[in-house]
Amino acid sequence: MKAVCLISGGMDSAVTAAIAKERGYGIYALTFDYGQRHRKEIECAKKIGKWLKAREHKILKIDLAQIGGSALTDKGIEVPKGKTIAEIRKSKRIPATYVPARNTILLSFALAYAEVVGADAIFIGANHIDYSGYPDCRPEYFKAYQRMGNLATKRAVEGRKIKIDYPIIRLDKKGIVKLGTKLSVPFKLTWSCYAGGRKACGRCDSCVLRKNGFFEAGLEDPIEYENR
Amino acid sequence: MKAVCLISGGMDSAVTAAIAKERGYGIYALTFDYGQRHRKEIECAKKIGKWLKAREHKILKIDLAQIGGSALTDKGIEVPKGKTIAEIRKSKRIPATYVPARNTILLSFALAYAEVVGADAIFIGANHIDYSGYPDCRPEYFKAYQRMGNLATKRAVEGRKIKIDYPIIRLDKKGIVKLGTKLSVPFKLTWSCYAGGRKACGRCDSCVLRKNGFFEAGLEDPIEYENR
Repeated sequence: MKAVCLISGGMDSAVTAAIAKERGYGIYALTFDYGQRHRKEIECAKKIGKWLKAREHKILKIDLAQIGGSALTDKGIEVPKGKTIAEIRKSKRIPATYVPARNTILLSFALAYAEVVGADAIFIGANHIDYSGYPDCRPEYFKAYQRMGNLATKRAVEGRKIKIDYPIIRLDKKGIVKLGTKLSVPFKLTWSCYAGGRKACGRCDSCVLRKNGFFEAGLEDPIEYENR
Repeated sequence: MKAVCLISGGMDSAVTAAIAKERGYGIYALTFDYGQRHRKEIECAKKIGKWLKAREHKILKIDLAQIGGSALTDKGIEVPKGKTIAEIRKSKRIPATYVPARNTILLSFALAYAEVVGADAIFIGANHIDYSGYPDCRPEYFKAYQRMGNLATKRAVEGRKIKIDYPIIRLDKKGIVKLGTKLSVPFKLTWSCYAGGRKACGRCDSCVLRKNGFFEAGLEDPIEYENR
């Protein structure tokens, strides 16, 4: 059994890949260098791949910056900061950190990679609860992606479908921290901050969600923040 | 009205974009430099973009060669040659030129680009009749892609869906040649050969289908072939 695991360098994808590992899959890690502001993610992703003992770890360069439209890839758009956990959770607006069609693009490469290595599943660490309102993190999106993927590849047409697995979709950050701790995920190697500094900023949506997750789980976050 | 048009440099995508132009869309051309063996395609794509008077033409570099699994991106796999039109048409096998998840990847970038420029549609020159058996050139695939796309983007969630338009899906090459001629598509600027030589090889599946299309349409193919 083989699985392609999307590894961003963040904690959600690390926990998700640890689940795949626990289930007995051989891991084919896939990380994207997509012009993200937070370059440190990629270094973290490589370390997580090593921890997972991935059979292969592809780092694919794709130029999302040239398409733009997101605070994560376009230096002209500011990363929003300073919201409280309550504000993030109750917000109905899709934030500036939304990257147009990102999961659709990432899953498409994962589908290609899965077909080439003969993988049975793709694991993606999307999360619907503390999800910052991204449309491509909802269960109905992944279900539609699965239906499309079943028609897209030679492998599927020949009867060997590639399952899109999003096992932490209904967990909140607290649950993800707890599960990751149980699976011995090295959270100190993960990076969540959107801002791209040397230390995590502690104030972007992603940092606020992460810090709150550790707080609610009653566990200590092993990474350093700018303003402790 | 704006449309993202996928322009490969081949005749199908050129005719498809000409249809979009005819329907009154402002054209945002999108071409991929994906490590294809037939590099000349990209130069042709640029010229077609100029002919279309595209408002913008993005040439996106994406590394499909690193994923491999196709004769079009992997120099270790040979491009099949020497089949007759009848053999190509009756073949049930998916050929070595199939690129894993290619249309899924290309459409995903098109979706992102469409969202950023505010396009209403994406035009893709896929073709179901003389389609060489690719799974991601079938109408049911595109329908599933549309349903997924409707859930994937901020634009769609806000009620402005991006239509996936594949207007030549049911035309054979003869019909494409005739329609393109009616729309004054400069076929001399298009490139179909898979082999990557200076002139078209005339013997790969793509050349055979093209030559036969012109033959059946009773029109002359304005490009040069190696073995005339």
